[in-house]
Amino acid sequence: MAYEHRLKVRYGETDQMGVVHHANYLLYLEEARTELMCHLGHAYAAIEASGIGLPVRTTELRFHAPAFYGDELVVSVTVERLRAASVTFGYEVARYPGRGRLMTGTVELACVRMTAERRPCPLPDDLRGALEGIR
Amino acid sequence: MAYEHRLKVRYGETDQMGVVHHANYLLYLEEARTELMCHLGHAYAAIEASGIGLPVRTTELRFHAPAFYGDELVVSVTVERLRAASVTFGYEVARYPGRGRLMTGTVELACVRMTAERRPCPLPDDLRGALEGIR
Amino acid sequence: MAYEHRLKVRYGETDQMGVVHHANYLLYLEEARTELMCHLGHAYAAIEASGIGLPVRTTELRFHAPAFYGDELVVSVTVERLRAASVTFGYEVARYPGRGRLMTGTVELACVRMTAERRPCPLPDDLRGALEGIR
Amino acid sequence: MAYEHRLKVRYGETDQMGVVHHANYLLYLEEARTELMCHLGHAYAAIEASGIGLPVRTTELRFHAPAFYGDELVVSVTVERLRAASVTFGYEVARYPGRGRLMTGTVELACVRMTAERRPCPLPDDLRGALEGIR
Repeated sequence: MAYEHRLKVRYGETDQMGVVHHANYLLYLEEARTELMCHLGHAYAAIEASGIGLPVRTTELRFHAPAFYGDELVVSVTVERLRAASVTFGYEVARYPGRGRLMTGTVELACVRMTAERRPCPLPDDLRGALEGIR
Repeated sequence: MAYEHRLKVRYGETDQMGVVHHANYLLYLEEARTELMCHLGHAYAAIEASGIGLPVRTTELRFHAPAFYGDELVVSVTVERLRAASVTFGYEVARYPGRGRLMTGTVELACVRMTAERRPCPLPDDLRGALEGIR
Repeated sequence: MAYEHRLKVRYGETDQMGVVHHANYLLYLEEARTELMCHLGHAYAAIEASGIGLPVRTTELRFHAPAFYGDELVVSVTVERLRAASVTFGYEVARYPGRGRLMTGTVELACVRMTAERRPCPLPDDLRGALEGIR
Repeated sequence: MAYEHRLKVRYGETDQMGVVHHANYLLYLEEARTELMCHLGHAYAAIEASGIGLPVRTTELRFHAPAFYGDELVVSVTVERLRAASVTFGYEVARYPGRGRLMTGTVELACVRMTAERRPCPLPDDLRGALEGIR
């Protein structure tokens, strides 16, 4: 089963079309996956403190229906793909409670050393193990 | 040749990794395509005032290298695909001056009536004509 | 006692100084006061739907210490001043749990009709009553 | 005469009230003052690289009238006050061209060493000199 993270739309996240501006979904997805990692015992702040970063390499989003101010949203997160030096999360955003998807998509994170060159490096073993455990 | 829009990275657009946070690229792309449309004589504000909206339906982004505070960026925009009720823009973001791409991607806009149902509708003829002219 | 709203700092809310960028506090304060109003039975979405808007007229913020990614924050909200056509909220932001204030400040909202002219108008009686009840 | 910085409102900076969301003004003011400092030969990136940071300590904003999507704005910046370890900028935001102020306010920056303690330190002499030159 997917990890589910709930959040509430902020007023400042809407635009003059009266709906959540699409760029904010990337913040929602980021919040959801870092909460998932925290839940697995791998707070992202601790990962960064160890000298490893997980910058976004690719993202694909599809918007099915708009979200509105005051909506409570559920962001469902799954691990779609695990590679040597990257992880791809799959997402579905829905209104809570309710039917139908507002957004679906993926975000691929690269694993890099936090030096100026940002060289790719293998995902830490314990993080990889934790992510494999929920595939 | 692609339409080129220049902008400068704001301090508040960086994150603690010391680079531009990925969500801000969607704002850069939006600024670039609305400037392009304005340049073609179709200000997005006027389109909305006529009862037509162009919400984002899909987006695919690939991040190749980070952008930094103070960087001047060039967002190159092309019309990748024109359909009855949608248009897909292609993008490349680069540092100015410089070599190498920081980001590449696409954003597909649906054309809808700005009523509660947001029914798809054909792109206005004059806008379609203008977009075809730069393919 | 002040109304307390808790939230967690998002990664994208930090800047390259490694702390929460100051502009985001205005989003935190907005989230806190709309949660308060919702708690009082006056969801802001419903107020707007009735033709009344509460745009920000003034704000004064003082930053005492930085907040970091992953911090859980408590935003304490009080009603500082009620006038015929405006309300001023007082705020204190602190780390949870912990001592010391990160930010203190006020935000004054004007009450206006949501027409093009945005004429000031009296706060609706029931909203005024609810706000008076927690002074 | 005040330093003037021009910028164009982005779609994503509006909210469902159909105007620029108030939090974005802090980004406009930041952009304007860093452009001013750059103009004076003191790029903020270079100041940070030298181990000095200028975090926001206080801000006071007053909103007089709304800005809209597509507006071109002029942010006028002056040096209001110079102290040993802080500088306060004064701002006025107006539509270009046009009459009347949309926003007025101040932002006070503290000068600190970029270590974990963020101890206050004197403004670098050359930066102070440059700022004094435009009072």
